[in-house]
Amino acid sequence: MKSQNSTAGMEIETGHRTASSDDPLPSWNEGAAKAAIIRFVRTTTDGASPDYVQAAERIATFDNDGTLWSEQPYYFQFAFAIDQIKARASRYPEWQDKEPFKSMLTGDAKSVLTGDQRELLQVLAATHFGMTTDEFEAEVRKWLASARHPRADRPYTDMVFQPMLEVLNYLRANDFKTFIVSGGGIEFMRTFAEQTYGIPHQQVIGSSGRLKFEMRDGTPVLLKLAEINFIDDYAGKPVSIQHHIGRRPIAAFGNSDGDLQMLQWTTGGKGAGFALLVRHTDAIREWEYDRESDIGRLDQALDEANAKGWTIVDMKNDWRRVFPFE
Amino acid sequence: MKSQNSTAGMEIETGHRTASSDDPLPSWNEGAAKAAIIRFVRTTTDGASPDYVQAAERIATFDNDGTLWSEQPYYFQFAFAIDQIKARASRYPEWQDKEPFKSMLTGDAKSVLTGDQRELLQVLAATHFGMTTDEFEAEVRKWLASARHPRADRPYTDMVFQPMLEVLNYLRANDFKTFIVSGGGIEFMRTFAEQTYGIPHQQVIGSSGRLKFEMRDGTPVLLKLAEINFIDDYAGKPVSIQHHIGRRPIAAFGNSDGDLQMLQWTTGGKGAGFALLVRHTDAIREWEYDRESDIGRLDQALDEANAKGWTIVDMKNDWRRVFPFE
Repeated sequence: MKSQNSTAGMEIETGHRTASSDDPLPSWNEGAAKAAIIRFVRTTTDGASPDYVQAAERIATFDNDGTLWSEQPYYFQFAFAIDQIKARASRYPEWQDKEPFKSMLTGDAKSVLTGDQRELLQVLAATHFGMTTDEFEAEVRKWLASARHPRADRPYTDMVFQPMLEVLNYLRANDFKTFIVSGGGIEFMRTFAEQTYGIPHQQVIGSSGRLKFEMRDGTPVLLKLAEINFIDDYAGKPVSIQHHIGRRPIAAFGNSDGDLQMLQWTTGGKGAGFALLVRHTDAIREWEYDRESDIGRLDQALDEANAKGWTIVDMKNDWRRVFPFE
Repeated sequence: MKSQNSTAGMEIETGHRTASSDDPLPSWNEGAAKAAIIRFVRTTTDGASPDYVQAAERIATFDNDGTLWSEQPYYFQFAFAIDQIKARASRYPEWQDKEPFKSMLTGDAKSVLTGDQRELLQVLAATHFGMTTDEFEAEVRKWLASARHPRADRPYTDMVFQPMLEVLNYLRANDFKTFIVSGGGIEFMRTFAEQTYGIPHQQVIGSSGRLKFEMRDGTPVLLKLAEINFIDDYAGKPVSIQHHIGRRPIAAFGNSDGDLQMLQWTTGGKGAGFALLVRHTDAIREWEYDRESDIGRLDQALDEANAKGWTIVDMKNDWRRVFPFE
């Protein structure tokens, strides 16, 4: 077990110093959000604190899209799906006239995102079906290595939030286990989560399609079927947390209404429960959107965060730096 | 990261010494099975070996019933279900005339086990529905604290295999992550796996019922529904491994036909893949059964193990000690 970082925490909490090498969160401006994170870690890891939590129960869950990396102009996995549909279109001529494929092929992709979520996931499943899990992983890796974010003109994995990487590291240095709990595809995220976030495959939880085990010429494969297995969003998040982790998190980080139930579950237990929402308030460095957005809508969860005193990060003011490349 | 235990491994592999404090597997008699385990660990953790596997990929999966603990005269979770049905019978008078409840209430419980597996799981779900996950955990803990194995007259958690506890510890000391992948109920197993096996909740994978998130007077709960979510047996095991772990194991341990696909998947990758079957050959200290047994049938998997040279443990001859209490 690693040692506690309580000294750094105590110094910072006084608010009288600027970032130094002892600061676990150097990309955060001093303020209520940063202080709340540090106070939470200190009180749950200090054996003398009434809120002390033993290491085995230090579970922290993070949404991915909009919480650990950007999600505009649309979810990055959706950009992957568009490219996959384009690459496979010649094999499926019926897609030319069939929605939502037609829109995705003709450039009106964003309209698909305003539709039903289950339909969208069925599209994603349809673009991946018939592949083995190994083949799918290879496709994602190839795409991530070549695709560029349309505005930033950088690899998508560059679009991660430096302040959140620091939170992940800070929690792990204090013996927390960090999990992703995302509506995104579980196998899509696992191709980069380890390298990008330091989160191993078994700590990535997401939406999934059904799989089928079969033998191909004596070699076992797992085939991806065009059927939804689980949608890991809204009330699905506490359910997937229970299935995969089997413990209630003591800290949860999200950015949209899809994270509300995860935050309710995390703060609804007996002991300490920390809930944080990232608010996209920075139209210059990132994006500005909340209650009216089709992607990452933050409305009900914002009301509940305000009512319950959850930590709300104002990206524009709380983050000294947004992306690592800045 | 802990240091490798290669010295102990090398000494033992020569076969010229008996158990000592350096022996990672003191309850194993010297023989092919013990040597194979030690050789596997040594070659996958020695940086100079062509079969070296980096720590992040050292995933080992274990079946539970019949592999880590006994499963006779019937699965221990089934004993729990019988006791639950008896305790709840007054509230459900229709069970008196309705199979399989009738048999379970009148003492002919074992006949239920020869029926369809899905029916059996539906019975288990039916005995647990309507509870929250927290209430269920409390019921299991209460039962485990008081119930006694009918033959051994001991708590069920005493009926674990000492040699397998040593394998778990040996693997973990060599930076393996150990997982349970069992047809048993995921939430049932999590109540004792940490204390009994040193396996944390998030590394326990099993069959599950569906869950529903809901608010009760402002407090979030997860309610157990009377519907099957996933059956983690046979071809379900590689599927659940992919969903929960997202990596192919490099070692898998089982004892019955329900483990065959997990062993095929584990040995079907590119690198080293270790497969082991525990054979119940000891009618005196434990039980003796294989091809004809309704519980833990070992038939096809035994043929395949013989054909492919997988490690087969002959409990009677390979294990110096079976249970910790001996």
